[in-house]
Amino acid sequence: MPDLMPVLARADQNLPSSLDQLFELLRIKSISTDPAYKGDCRKAAVWLVDYLKTLGFDASVRDTPGHPMVVAHHDGASASAPHVLFYGHYDVQPVDPIELWDNDPFEPSVQEAAGRKILTGRGTADDKGQLMTFVEACRAYKEIHGSLPVRVTILFEGEEESGSPSLKPFLEANEAELKADYALVCDTSMWDRDTPAIAAALRGLVGEEIVVTAADRDLHSGLFGGAAANPIHILTKILAGLHDDTGRITLDGFYDGVEETPENIKASWETLGLTTEAFLGDVGLSVPSGEKGRSVLELTWARPTAEVNGIWGGYTGEGFKTVIAAKASAKVSFRLVGTQDPAAIRDSFRAYVQSRIPADCTVEFHPHGGSPAIHLSYDSPVLTKAKTALSDEWPKPAVVIGMGGSIPIVGDFQKMLGMESLLVGFGLADDRIHSPNEKYELTSYHKGIRSWIRIMEALAA
Amino acid sequence: MPDLMPVLARADQNLPSSLDQLFELLRIKSISTDPAYKGDCRKAAVWLVDYLKTLGFDASVRDTPGHPMVVAHHDGASASAPHVLFYGHYDVQPVDPIELWDNDPFEPSVQEAAGRKILTGRGTADDKGQLMTFVEACRAYKEIHGSLPVRVTILFEGEEESGSPSLKPFLEANEAELKADYALVCDTSMWDRDTPAIAAALRGLVGEEIVVTAADRDLHSGLFGGAAANPIHILTKILAGLHDDTGRITLDGFYDGVEETPENIKASWETLGLTTEAFLGDVGLSVPSGEKGRSVLELTWARPTAEVNGIWGGYTGEGFKTVIAAKASAKVSFRLVGTQDPAAIRDSFRAYVQSRIPADCTVEFHPHGGSPAIHLSYDSPVLTKAKTALSDEWPKPAVVIGMGGSIPIVGDFQKMLGMESLLVGFGLADDRIHSPNEKYELTSYHKGIRSWIRIMEALAA
Repeated sequence: MPDLMPVLARADQNLPSSLDQLFELLRIKSISTDPAYKGDCRKAAVWLVDYLKTLGFDASVRDTPGHPMVVAHHDGASASAPHVLFYGHYDVQPVDPIELWDNDPFEPSVQEAAGRKILTGRGTADDKGQLMTFVEACRAYKEIHGSLPVRVTILFEGEEESGSPSLKPFLEANEAELKADYALVCDTSMWDRDTPAIAAALRGLVGEEIVVTAADRDLHSGLFGGAAANPIHILTKILAGLHDDTGRITLDGFYDGVEETPENIKASWETLGLTTEAFLGDVGLSVPSGEKGRSVLELTWARPTAEVNGIWGGYTGEGFKTVIAAKASAKVSFRLVGTQDPAAIRDSFRAYVQSRIPADCTVEFHPHGGSPAIHLSYDSPVLTKAKTALSDEWPKPAVVIGMGGSIPIVGDFQKMLGMESLLVGFGLADDRIHSPNEKYELTSYHKGIRSWIRIMEALAA
Repeated sequence: MPDLMPVLARADQNLPSSLDQLFELLRIKSISTDPAYKGDCRKAAVWLVDYLKTLGFDASVRDTPGHPMVVAHHDGASASAPHVLFYGHYDVQPVDPIELWDNDPFEPSVQEAAGRKILTGRGTADDKGQLMTFVEACRAYKEIHGSLPVRVTILFEGEEESGSPSLKPFLEANEAELKADYALVCDTSMWDRDTPAIAAALRGLVGEEIVVTAADRDLHSGLFGGAAANPIHILTKILAGLHDDTGRITLDGFYDGVEETPENIKASWETLGLTTEAFLGDVGLSVPSGEKGRSVLELTWARPTAEVNGIWGGYTGEGFKTVIAAKASAKVSFRLVGTQDPAAIRDSFRAYVQSRIPADCTVEFHPHGGSPAIHLSYDSPVLTKAKTALSDEWPKPAVVIGMGGSIPIVGDFQKMLGMESLLVGFGLADDRIHSPNEKYELTSYHKGIRSWIRIMEALAA
């Protein structure tokens, strides 16, 4: 591969300035879920468009009813080169509890940790650092060859962390412009520090917020306690009833479309050698929750879940207040597998909740996104080429895995644009995405850039 | 009663200035449970001392490790006059959620509501308005007779809404100074708008905060959901398990010391004519919660409760965050009756919680006060005199009732100073104490002042 080595060498030389570019993007507080940061989200989109233009992309900020999209196009070395759509998201998770961060989440830095260099800050791993690996790969390629080996369309969204409300309408309205031979999605993790991974199964997601209302005001628990309904009690009973004693979810029809994982797949997961002790021990736990008698890989890749992501009600400040609250709220999400239907799960959950609301109380539901699980073919030519390219870059050969998280875009690409996705990412399990002290390894960034150079090259061959 | 009428007339004339004095006190943000308002609590104590001095009291601010006490003394018309200890508290509840207040909680006003005049603001009913009824009664008496009919010691505390941590040590250290023939406590309610009430039974209270910790950080619910323990799930199971399907509390030994209410007492409550519809309908409810088959009066006066007063964990902001929290917390309180032992209840609760914490998770407990239930004699001479005095002032005769709330001081007076209490107050059920839009009726304030004039006179006779 005579063309490859100079490009990889250029990526190595570029690394300091590639970091500078990433840090500029990381400093923009593009928290999509909080309306206070609307302006910052646009700022991030504009920054990306400006930067992509300097690399020769035909790039533009595209307005939506929510946060804007970034769309950019670049020709390939030949008109017959494959056409890829690269997807990433420039929005980030909220940073609370802010007091648990060791460094300012929006003032990124390079730090030394356990002998390795890490990049600190919100969005380093999810997903700004990851999307920039591809952008910087394009840059190195352009600088050496004046062109890219494949035709590239880029789509960056700004609502991935808030349910992507604008995405489907945007794909629909811009189908012709966005359709490519296949999509490259960089929002996933390595198997471990040395082993790159391609994700071929992703769980779906249903998010739902519920608000239980009892009395028309907060009540004194002395005057009314024992006679007046307490919405926190109602809510805790509802949430506690979501799982039975074996860890199974109790909703009617919840397991419709959930198949047992084939033995050969389970056997291949066994060879990865991940123990419960290692997986849970890393975050200070030791006992698997959820369904009994299944490995942690099966629980997180192949089984559906119900998780309460937030709960609040009554007095939560310092000291004590003997109040019976008027309202209590929770945010609940379901991870889906197989062919579980997001709409049916939402309906079943709502019916279950409604059935447990006393006659004189009420409940409101607020939907927060829904998407089915995704299964990609384990043996497509694209996947095989990418596997080889990744195996050439990293210490250990690439593996094909499942993922516990949800990337709804992959389903949308499949359904709306008839396009399969290749899911490659360079995050690590301890990157603390969605948590305080999010980080991305410098090696992930550097070898991530080199990996995309190799993958683009392999796809063009 | 030749002496009484001029004093009552003076109280009537004084009303505008009595309101001015109360409003000055109400403007001080003496929220005891929040450390941010420490200085305001002291300001309220100093204001009271200064005002009591102008009425001829020997008054002083008395430091404690928490918020200060106010102690004041005044001689009676004769050395042989009965000696009473009047108790109230100058601290108030927090005001959140602040957006639900129609008026600034700390800018009191007189408003017209349903043809009646009400005083608006935090502390109007609980307890600044109530304690000032006694102070203004003393003022009118002094202005007419130059003396008081009984010997008066005043004790105002500033920690009633935060578990009174300094009270017992203060009573112990100042036993000789504070001991009187009996205590007058003004922190309770009328039976209804026309019917004054003397409370003879009060529920006790145990407060406890629990913090459940699972992983050592917040986790992504996609990567870890289904395998990692979710502390909100653990907490909701614990709280949901506190009550069985009949509304009984499940803690071991919880009902030790709880007696069935005698039929004659229940019969006397029946004559009060309070229906479930009226009691619950007033706050927008209709179905009694708690133990089945008991009247709302029995549930709130004579049965113990377990109530979750606050719960929080995970992401509670705008939008959605697919996080598994590291911690989840709740504030729980128990109302006690009969001879239930606060320490035993706390121990039983802690053992129950601890037994439901998975091996790799932990729980912390933070106590928030504890006091047993109080039962006073229904036929003491003091109670009889007060009943007559109140019946002379109000449209309907006074009734002797139970109370669902807790006033731990009454137990402390009994145990530590060997002193019975007379519990008289002029609040109304719809005063929204502990809630937004707390109010006190102008009639409560005005006739409350007149009531204490009559009671002091009656006690001296």
